[in-house]
Amino acid sequence: MCQLLGMNGNTPTDIVFSFTGFCTRAEEHKDGFGIAFFEGPGVRLFVDAQSARTSPVAEMVRQYPIRSDNIIAHIRKATQGRIALENTHPFQRELWGRYWVFAHNGDLKNFAPRLHASFRPVGNTDSELAFCWLMQELSKAHASVPSIPELTATLRELVPQLAAHGTFNCMLSNGEALWAHCSTKLWYLVRQHPFQRATLQDEDISVNFAEETSAADRVAVVVTEPLTRDENWVAFRPGELKVFAGGLPLDH
Amino acid sequence: MCQLLGMNGNTPTDIVFSFTGFCTRAEEHKDGFGIAFFEGPGVRLFVDAQSARTSPVAEMVRQYPIRSDNIIAHIRKATQGRIALENTHPFQRELWGRYWVFAHNGDLKNFAPRLHASFRPVGNTDSELAFCWLMQELSKAHASVPSIPELTATLRELVPQLAAHGTFNCMLSNGEALWAHCSTKLWYLVRQHPFQRATLQDEDISVNFAEETSAADRVAVVVTEPLTRDENWVAFRPGELKVFAGGLPLDH
Repeated sequence: MCQLLGMNGNTPTDIVFSFTGFCTRAEEHKDGFGIAFFEGPGVRLFVDAQSARTSPVAEMVRQYPIRSDNIIAHIRKATQGRIALENTHPFQRELWGRYWVFAHNGDLKNFAPRLHASFRPVGNTDSELAFCWLMQELSKAHASVPSIPELTATLRELVPQLAAHGTFNCMLSNGEALWAHCSTKLWYLVRQHPFQRATLQDEDISVNFAEETSAADRVAVVVTEPLTRDENWVAFRPGELKVFAGGLPLDH
Repeated sequence: MCQLLGMNGNTPTDIVFSFTGFCTRAEEHKDGFGIAFFEGPGVRLFVDAQSARTSPVAEMVRQYPIRSDNIIAHIRKATQGRIALENTHPFQRELWGRYWVFAHNGDLKNFAPRLHASFRPVGNTDSELAFCWLMQELSKAHASVPSIPELTATLRELVPQLAAHGTFNCMLSNGEALWAHCSTKLWYLVRQHPFQRATLQDEDISVNFAEETSAADRVAVVVTEPLTRDENWVAFRPGELKVFAGGLPLDH
């Protein structure tokens, strides 16, 4: 299984601390990593087909505090599709003049949808196939970029059709919001005023967010396994789809 | 004006030497840089909205010898579109289950094509608009990935329609070949056996390719201005479209 990490903030925020903790899990998940940073509508996607522990690309990401409002990262343990760049998450496409980024943890069985629109997989993972199908169905459901609640409503219809084929923990962002679906395992927390110290689960690294932030900052972090040992992580329910915007989970 | 650098090899080759020389020109072209590396059908695209001389992303690219068979790099001096990630070349889209990467040097005037298919610009440059139009017209001309000669023939019809609007030096790759069109300025060379020493134009750095290569290696380098002072660079003619595959310019 792979691991997912997502971030949505109300202000561009760097992910150095969380990504450092996430990378310590790459020993077991050594078949590549990727991370996408939205900066407004623009996106940059760093991928490497080697482990996030040893990749020079991951090292650069840990050292260079890229400030972003929406981030999706993934470390891969190959289940379907060979270890190659084209099979490395996250995947990216353009729809309605916006970039969309997607990453998946799980395994889909007997999933062979008809792709009749203009989104085709380049690699051979079930994950990229699911993403292409999602993009196709979104493009059929709306004529141009819908509002966040409209998109959430459409995704609530589409995602269960994918999850019916197996394990489907996933994250999707278009730079405006972060959607996360839990099939088996996903946690989130909101960091906001009053900020406190947080200590990584797997390494003796801690950061005092009170010193790093301003009182108005707010950021939601979503991850396969809690990253810190002294913060209040909330478990998703199986089958739950949440949308985060402005650093908060939205109710609708 | 911006500057372009492209590479097409018959074997995955690193571009550390050429990219180092290319980055020395970033003082004047300081509004961002980008570089796309194909590894088979997979691609990774590194972009930064700061100068290639100071960007930590560019530093990582100079230090990490990523081996690739097709590379397109760009350093930007903004003419149309603000300095932002979404306006930073190269641009990337997927068509027929292949990734396509495009970069442009020049300026198009009165260019407002009808975009009725599924390729829309995310930023607001004339370059990304031209790329979206090219992808649209290619998708109309062929039902699936055509052969290199077929694609070249289609591009020979399409590119002059863009060049009619202004300066259109550009590079395009799908990981199989590199297409380069010269409107005003473009040079290329082929490095092959017997390999020799080459010295960068702008810095006292030289490399003896005889020590770095095997006799069967062959690589074509295409660039806005010759990178080295002791190699035989060939100038493109204005209006010329060349395609490089296997490290050689093809005749058709």
